[in-house]
Amino acid sequence: MASAEFWYEFASTYSYPAALRVAALAEERGVRLVWRPFLLGPIFTAQGWRDSPFNIYPAKGRYMWRDLERTCTAIGLPLKRPEPFPQPSLLAARVALALGGDSRVNFSRLVFAAEFSQGLPIGDRGTLGPLLAACGIDPAAAFERAESEANKARLKAECARAAEIGVIGAPCLVTEDGEVFWGNDRLEQGLDWAATGRLGAVR
Amino acid sequence: MASAEFWYEFASTYSYPAALRVAALAEERGVRLVWRPFLLGPIFTAQGWRDSPFNIYPAKGRYMWRDLERTCTAIGLPLKRPEPFPQPSLLAARVALALGGDSRVNFSRLVFAAEFSQGLPIGDRGTLGPLLAACGIDPAAAFERAESEANKARLKAECARAAEIGVIGAPCLVTEDGEVFWGNDRLEQGLDWAATGRLGAVR
Repeated sequence: MASAEFWYEFASTYSYPAALRVAALAEERGVRLVWRPFLLGPIFTAQGWRDSPFNIYPAKGRYMWRDLERTCTAIGLPLKRPEPFPQPSLLAARVALALGGDSRVNFSRLVFAAEFSQGLPIGDRGTLGPLLAACGIDPAAAFERAESEANKARLKAECARAAEIGVIGAPCLVTEDGEVFWGNDRLEQGLDWAATGRLGAVR
Repeated sequence: MASAEFWYEFASTYSYPAALRVAALAEERGVRLVWRPFLLGPIFTAQGWRDSPFNIYPAKGRYMWRDLERTCTAIGLPLKRPEPFPQPSLLAARVALALGGDSRVNFSRLVFAAEFSQGLPIGDRGTLGPLLAACGIDPAAAFERAESEANKARLKAECARAAEIGVIGAPCLVTEDGEVFWGNDRLEQGLDWAATGRLGAVR
């Protein structure tokens, strides 16, 4: 069975519709997905950015919010901008990484929905705890595993790996042969490539 | 009849497949296109960039060239990287602007094909002259109109207009109600919006 990696960052706006679309798209194509949470911070820092490029370049930011709004409307997703933007995503990324398999997927989707459908602060345990509970996971135990030194080191290694394989933003779909597809608007292409070794549609 | 503006920059890589795709896509949807050549230089300068962001951020540049290669392969377009990149596009933009209607469209497509299918230097009259001739246009007269003070001022005004309406990159599709769709991968969305006032497809 073909597989692909879905690299996502909880603070990333386009990761929101992507995280809610990608599982069905992968299933349609018979592609097994590996969900890989990471942080864009180290990648942006390496490019000399100390904030989201959507804040550094306001015209780009205005465009992005409008484009995202159109994208969400078209697929029936609510959109509420969290304040501040970007949200601190370190804790959510550590928790997601410490979880395995379906729990990681379920928790990650709930985090994106809380953040961008409801505008909730995802840096707070008060937000994340109930989401963990909703997935049938004990919040206290999950936070403890998330904040362990081993898990912190593992997340750092994941970020280094992302940079190494050419992940330059989020979300990215990475195929087994090393092709990187960046953006919510490249999910279909990336999954077509994973399934067939080529782009399925003219775009 | 619905109409939309197609803003393009001759030095822009993604403007190449867009310029060769957009007319058929617009026709399918019954949208009349207005071709508006402009320069990204002033827009990039306003963001503090003195070169293409694809050169300033090498990881982004590597991603873009691979993504463009996949995009061109999928639609059967050759791709040859011009050296240097980006190419000086001022002369071609002035010539295109000085031409009207179908001549502008035909000349613009030939410029993109020369630059990115063959890797030819589009800053040279030696490249552009034969392309003008191939469109049935007298090259000497076209260059003279292009380099007139009135036409130079008109191109400056076009660049200012682009920034004013939220054109942040190239290509952009701008609809009558002021929506901006940035990128070769947003042509279908922009034209759907122009024709129907909403996005036609889930993406």
